[in-house]
Amino acid sequence: MATGHHVAGWRHPDAHADAGRSLSHYAALARRAEAAGFDALFLADGVAIRGMDDATLPHTARAATFEPLTLLSALAAVTQRIGLVATASTTYNEPYHVARKFASLDHLSGGRAGWNVVTSWSDAEARNFSLDRHPEHADRYARAEEFVDVVTGLWDSWEDDAFLYDKANGVHFDASKLHRLDHHGRHFQVRGPLNIARPPQGHPVIVQAGSSEAGQELAARTAEVIFTAQQSLEGAQAFYRGLKGRLARFGRTPDQLKILPGVFPVVGRSAAEAEEKFEALQDLILPSVGLALLSQHLGGIDLSGYPLDGPLPDNLQEPNGAKSRFQLVTGLAREEGLTIRQLCRRVATARGHWSIHGTPAQIVDQLQAWFEAEAADGFNVMPPWLPGGLDDFIELVLPELRRRGLFREQYTGTTLREHLGLVRPGHLRRERARSA
Amino acid sequence: MATGHHVAGWRHPDAHADAGRSLSHYAALARRAEAAGFDALFLADGVAIRGMDDATLPHTARAATFEPLTLLSALAAVTQRIGLVATASTTYNEPYHVARKFASLDHLSGGRAGWNVVTSWSDAEARNFSLDRHPEHADRYARAEEFVDVVTGLWDSWEDDAFLYDKANGVHFDASKLHRLDHHGRHFQVRGPLNIARPPQGHPVIVQAGSSEAGQELAARTAEVIFTAQQSLEGAQAFYRGLKGRLARFGRTPDQLKILPGVFPVVGRSAAEAEEKFEALQDLILPSVGLALLSQHLGGIDLSGYPLDGPLPDNLQEPNGAKSRFQLVTGLAREEGLTIRQLCRRVATARGHWSIHGTPAQIVDQLQAWFEAEAADGFNVMPPWLPGGLDDFIELVLPELRRRGLFREQYTGTTLREHLGLVRPGHLRRERARSA
Repeated sequence: MATGHHVAGWRHPDAHADAGRSLSHYAALARRAEAAGFDALFLADGVAIRGMDDATLPHTARAATFEPLTLLSALAAVTQRIGLVATASTTYNEPYHVARKFASLDHLSGGRAGWNVVTSWSDAEARNFSLDRHPEHADRYARAEEFVDVVTGLWDSWEDDAFLYDKANGVHFDASKLHRLDHHGRHFQVRGPLNIARPPQGHPVIVQAGSSEAGQELAARTAEVIFTAQQSLEGAQAFYRGLKGRLARFGRTPDQLKILPGVFPVVGRSAAEAEEKFEALQDLILPSVGLALLSQHLGGIDLSGYPLDGPLPDNLQEPNGAKSRFQLVTGLAREEGLTIRQLCRRVATARGHWSIHGTPAQIVDQLQAWFEAEAADGFNVMPPWLPGGLDDFIELVLPELRRRGLFREQYTGTTLREHLGLVRPGHLRRERARSA
Repeated sequence: MATGHHVAGWRHPDAHADAGRSLSHYAALARRAEAAGFDALFLADGVAIRGMDDATLPHTARAATFEPLTLLSALAAVTQRIGLVATASTTYNEPYHVARKFASLDHLSGGRAGWNVVTSWSDAEARNFSLDRHPEHADRYARAEEFVDVVTGLWDSWEDDAFLYDKANGVHFDASKLHRLDHHGRHFQVRGPLNIARPPQGHPVIVQAGSSEAGQELAARTAEVIFTAQQSLEGAQAFYRGLKGRLARFGRTPDQLKILPGVFPVVGRSAAEAEEKFEALQDLILPSVGLALLSQHLGGIDLSGYPLDGPLPDNLQEPNGAKSRFQLVTGLAREEGLTIRQLCRRVATARGHWSIHGTPAQIVDQLQAWFEAEAADGFNVMPPWLPGGLDDFIELVLPELRRRGLFREQYTGTTLREHLGLVRPGHLRRERARSA
């Protein structure tokens, strides 16, 4: 969210409550994160106002913000190094548009674009696109598999050295280096070629966050970065081991997929200060908002009939979309024995992500433990409110990470792939021709 | 085109042949045009590589360039005043996406966005979107009519003063000022609301360029700016009179629609210098490119069997797309008795637009004549090559226009609507409620 990841973060005294319509807010954030050496700035997205009932929505800052590709393009013009990652849905888009927009962002930014592939999760989205209901999970993932292949195929329409710019002979490009895709699949017929040169990164970095069986299979085959919500070291290790273990089947090595759990950090100069900051944020949650958010995590189930200080009912039905969130929350309820009220406060903080508070050393101890125990290749840092929550992380946590040699002093590359240690993909046809 | 409007403009010694992948090229152009006080920068667009056979395409600079919404968003971040207008097709998009992206660009730019509504014209586009053929003209315009209504309806999802940002009470926005669209039409079912605040301009400026009967009806009902290709003062006057005459039927006044013919200017310090510049450009046209371009203007008709120095065959069949270009070219052939070779050179210069060359005074005489004779409210200036062709216009023509009081000394407003003298639309529901 524009205002930070805590549901009440926009109410923090130093938060920019109007962040969703302020380019200067985002430009300052991006420059700040870039000066600190972050890999990337990531924008989640949906193509509807989602997941809140009409009574609760006005108490949150999540109803309205910039469209992410346009916003990241504007940020590309005012930054030089930081990666720019946006979500785009395979359920409510056409692959030609998605391929083209991310290729364009990659050119505008000199090789800093990333695409977070999602299949979306709400009927609200369906109803903005002439459908009554969100398509079924299996159908969405079948479409997503084909969609990603079409997009990467379109990115290879041009070979890297296709453009000659030969004014004297009037030859703009080498015709032998332009390729039609001629894709004929179950969901899409796409001839191509794409009307933009091959992206500077070859392919913009592909990111995913689905944790279902189908989501993990798609990720193992196509993704280069995974965002995931994990609550415990053991859970994160199991997820990490499981997903990395799937790669060999697709001819890939473990270093080709970076797993980045979300972390929601509240940092203080002392443990007490961190705790105070956290409780101050929690006290800003209106009870109705907490309950609505919990209901959303469970796929829209109405919890108003259950006592707040009692347990979750145990006969809940798994929803059609966002299965992994449902499992995460019901798992939390079961394992930690949390009441509905406690679950409300838990999901309100970080929407199911790992929430840690403490001194810089306490926070870095935990991040380091996850990193060294093969639970994470890095982290998706989710500041509770903005810009102050990011400033805290930069000013307090980064120096401690650097002292331990766990965070770069400065960028050594210029592209998002280089920041992440990901190899630039060769051109598919060129490689096939070479091996033939 | 990124390299200029003359088909061989990219071969000009000072042209940026790599403009289609250079943000710095576009940023410099936009800043230059802004310093000069232009209303807007306009990007035409298609969602395919279109209108050229495989043998001819490599000799042009039109196959690959930025996606326009991402490019204009980047330019929004490095300019302050100039309008930013992009084409988006109603045939190969969904209205929710289009409404959202132009709203986002309008916010990013502080009220400088414009949407050029087109229905597209090529089978090449259809084949990138799982269709075999481009839909029929009447179907495209029926969809376009509904599409524009959905987009403008979505822009009014939020009232202008909906956001309260009341941190103390936890009220982000006033729920009574958020409206669903609940559109149920023949082509689209769109519930809304849009997940971005009402654009700073109320609605981004709506531009159109179709000249067919259906195109003019759509324009008369919904457009605020018209781009048009006109070859003669009389033709331009007839078009101007006809289109302005349609407005009253839709309850609109003539000043609510600005008609801007395209003009392709080649300017010299003397008439001889202008002629030399023009001929030098014409000599850069490869004959095969000229013939392919003429064929494209006629809807893809194969002209290779006809003698170059003979007339156009007179039994040509009007194409499904781009009817107005077909009529323009066949009209030219008939009225001026041009051969195929002459037509090739004519369409190669300005793609059917008005081409004028001469001294600054000669050029301004003609622009002034059109303006004063109600043939134009202004012009869409199409430099032959870039950046030099724009520089020539700014350095040589603008001073003469200003001397005669026909061009602003500096901006007096900050939004594209203000530059164009267009009123900001009120909020539809708010206005209905007021009059009820």
